[in-house]
Amino acid sequence: MQNFEQILNKYLSKIESYLQDECSVYPDQPQQTLFEAMRYSLLAGGKRLRPIFVYDFCRMCGGDWENATPFAAALEAIHTSSLIHDDLPCMDNDDYRRGRLTNHKVYGEDVAVLAGDALLIAAFSYISKANYPADVRIRAVEVLADSVGELGMVGGQILDIQSEQRECSEQEVLDVQSRKTGALIRAAAVLGVLAGNGSEEQLRAATEFADHIGLAFQIRDDMLDQIGNADTLGKAVHTDMQKNTFVHIYGIQGCDNLVKQHTALAIEALNAFEDNEFMLQLADFLIDRMK
Amino acid sequence: MQNFEQILNKYLSKIESYLQDECSVYPDQPQQTLFEAMRYSLLAGGKRLRPIFVYDFCRMCGGDWENATPFAAALEAIHTSSLIHDDLPCMDNDDYRRGRLTNHKVYGEDVAVLAGDALLIAAFSYISKANYPADVRIRAVEVLADSVGELGMVGGQILDIQSEQRECSEQEVLDVQSRKTGALIRAAAVLGVLAGNGSEEQLRAATEFADHIGLAFQIRDDMLDQIGNADTLGKAVHTDMQKNTFVHIYGIQGCDNLVKQHTALAIEALNAFEDNEFMLQLADFLIDRMK
Repeated sequence: MQNFEQILNKYLSKIESYLQDECSVYPDQPQQTLFEAMRYSLLAGGKRLRPIFVYDFCRMCGGDWENATPFAAALEAIHTSSLIHDDLPCMDNDDYRRGRLTNHKVYGEDVAVLAGDALLIAAFSYISKANYPADVRIRAVEVLADSVGELGMVGGQILDIQSEQRECSEQEVLDVQSRKTGALIRAAAVLGVLAGNGSEEQLRAATEFADHIGLAFQIRDDMLDQIGNADTLGKAVHTDMQKNTFVHIYGIQGCDNLVKQHTALAIEALNAFEDNEFMLQLADFLIDRMK
Repeated sequence: MQNFEQILNKYLSKIESYLQDECSVYPDQPQQTLFEAMRYSLLAGGKRLRPIFVYDFCRMCGGDWENATPFAAALEAIHTSSLIHDDLPCMDNDDYRRGRLTNHKVYGEDVAVLAGDALLIAAFSYISKANYPADVRIRAVEVLADSVGELGMVGGQILDIQSEQRECSEQEVLDVQSRKTGALIRAAAVLGVLAGNGSEEQLRAATEFADHIGLAFQIRDDMLDQIGNADTLGKAVHTDMQKNTFVHIYGIQGCDNLVKQHTALAIEALNAFEDNEFMLQLADFLIDRMK
């Protein structure tokens, strides 16, 4: 059996080469600035957590994980789009992301808005052209659109903006997380199961796994904003002091406990899958990450 | 046989009631500001030209046009999204649209960016849930995504922005039009044929019709910016004086001739459809419109 790092590197190498070679590469077109801006953020070397989820849930269901690459790329394109728009001056007004200038600092706000739009749309184009039966592809479109739209990710972004002006309840903070970051992680796991032709039970288990690991991930993110190091994180720390964060609600120790609890529940959900060793180790890795 | 106005009113009444009753109506959700912002622009009473194209191409192919409503709504949602983002301060910086304050003037830039994003995504959700076989729906997703993405509408928006700084060739101005406004009109006609289960020949004819009528429509738009009345148009006139407009290239008389020529070619393409009386009259109507 391959070890964790070998599998991880295969996943990362596949998604990186696809994004590098296939996404927004049209040498004969005049709108090169748009392609450059899209690729600047898409190829900025994120964790690729969502593609990894797509790949490994597909593999755990017995599917050919490489074939799921357009689904994996779709998740990463939407994630990148949301970061570009989130960083805009009218939103979080961030100058740095992943240790580099944000998209609008390099290309201007107008191009950044359009690059985000184009990446959102590209996601649906990738899915529409994937090598799966039409019913699998259209279900993936539905899951993705509903996960990232007004009831999901974008709905969470607006609630997050509005919540900055006041003190929120624990339930409200959980609701924002569940939408703003949780919905896309959930979609990644579900699209992986769809790509692997998994059962309805596996779809439910993947959703449960993603809900718990997504929450643990976000709580850990809030913790790192307090205890982390700006150089390691590649972005400013202590930026969330005034916001409704998990650290503000539960404290560092309470957050640490919750990360462990939700990771344990996520791991339990993996019982629906054989050969789940990789995902178990990934969950353990995420719990302790420093960036 | 029904006359032009009766059919038009049925189309308009159907799409208006769908947008009014079905789009972004979730009374139990907390993100009401987002829904309000989406509906503010979606229900601002545009011409609904793209839904009308979807409906009538579906009907001309022998399909049940009412069933095509989710496709029609998808086109209008994307069109509305592009207007909201185009009006932003970092783009065209427009305060008025259709006689009302633009989205960001009412809701703020942050909400306007997210409302545009949500409408883009909603379009794909509507299509995914339409009452058509999976292969029809996924083909509609592919056509729409490719029409509005980096090679289509959004690509045209960036070329339009960049062209403002210099004098463009006739070919460049035509290219911007073909993408920025043409691509979505083309998608509307094609989605109508897909909804009506039309032939490949009808798909080609619908594309040709849309290309010519879209160009005629945009040339007429440029003319109205020069000869039109701000009250009738509901927006400022003479705003395009410095831009690379068709009026700048061809002059008013040259534009008038081109509108007639392209409308004639559009009408010729309609020979691929029986019972094309409505669309013929619509083309005639568009040629002479004052707003």
